[in-house]
Amino acid sequence: MDMILNDLGWRYATKKFDTEKKLSADQENTIKEALRMTPSSFWLQPWKFVFVKNPELREMLKEHAWGQSQVTDASHLLILCRENEVDQNLVNEYFEDMKKTTWAGEEDISGYKNMVTWFVWNLDSEDAKIWAEKQVYIALWNIMTVLAEMKIDSCPMEWFDSVKFDEILELQDKWISSVVILPIGFRASDDKYSENQKVRFDQNHLFLEI
Amino acid sequence: MDMILNDLGWRYATKKFDTEKKLSADQENTIKEALRMTPSSFWLQPWKFVFVKNPELREMLKEHAWGQSQVTDASHLLILCRENEVDQNLVNEYFEDMKKTTWAGEEDISGYKNMVTWFVWNLDSEDAKIWAEKQVYIALWNIMTVLAEMKIDSCPMEWFDSVKFDEILELQDKWISSVVILPIGFRASDDKYSENQKVRFDQNHLFLEI
Repeated sequence: MDMILNDLGWRYATKKFDTEKKLSADQENTIKEALRMTPSSFWLQPWKFVFVKNPELREMLKEHAWGQSQVTDASHLLILCRENEVDQNLVNEYFEDMKKTTWAGEEDISGYKNMVTWFVWNLDSEDAKIWAEKQVYIALWNIMTVLAEMKIDSCPMEWFDSVKFDEILELQDKWISSVVILPIGFRASDDKYSENQKVRFDQNHLFLEI
Repeated sequence: MDMILNDLGWRYATKKFDTEKKLSADQENTIKEALRMTPSSFWLQPWKFVFVKNPELREMLKEHAWGQSQVTDASHLLILCRENEVDQNLVNEYFEDMKKTTWAGEEDISGYKNMVTWFVWNLDSEDAKIWAEKQVYIALWNIMTVLAEMKIDSCPMEWFDSVKFDEILELQDKWISSVVILPIGFRASDDKYSENQKVRFDQNHLFLEI
């Protein structure tokens, strides 16, 4: 158990990446599989994950993320996106996938499918956006915890110009929107932030028992 | 790395808990420390974590969570809450904590503190609520991944009557609100859901490379 706490203590929001060190294909695949395994409310997985591999695009994106060098210097740049439409199509896609990958037939799933359909019908577009963004945050931290255990660095960024990102990456055409970005790679040996002590409220402040 | 994927595959939203099996004090402490280590935007940690240990209260809460037995049967019931006020007080608390636990003096932190102050001043109350809830979701999935690795079961629940929960637990008096609840414990040996195959969209569906 101490290993888990050590890994969480080891990670930090990496400010300076080693531009020479790249993820292996195996590491990239483990990251993808761990993202896939993220649970979501009603199992709807209202997300897509975009790896930006084109260096010119990454250069263009940087200026819309306060010029932060992680956007271009990290081995990988992951954009966690929400689906723009949380609707019957998404529900149908999920249940088709369920029928393909399990023993379930239409009669087995209809009760649950009706409930989920009722849920998406009753979401207005603003609620749907907020709900989908929360799910994306589950994926974000799932992968950050997994990365810490793989001793791979990352730096989550909420503050970037998502409208510009969506334009540059033409995400509207794919019916998705960027929510949070995550440069992934390996810390530079001289990133002074890696030595900062973590500051967290103590247990007395954070926990209540009732 | 396969171990991580195995652990993520092992976990599932537990529907039926073993009422006899309880977390040890060591396990509870590891869970608290892992929650503490959760990162948050600007490090502000706009959350509190409530363990409901009073069985009568858990019985009262159950009916406001669709009567789901996990609320009363799991070893522990964790309520992940947001701070109601994301304001100068929270900023001050954080920076006081930083000065106490690091070498930093007022002159070292003033630039960053001004930026964070500017951020909270510019949040209206609805934005503050949404922002704080997103942070709570980071804590939720951090702890769920850690629990999977500890081979401890859990069942995240978004759909409960948070107004009633807040009333019963008198959370308004503590300036916090419930966001998501997490019964934690050990699966009952006859929980049939533990055998369900996971259904997740495949990599081609979820990932884009640009």
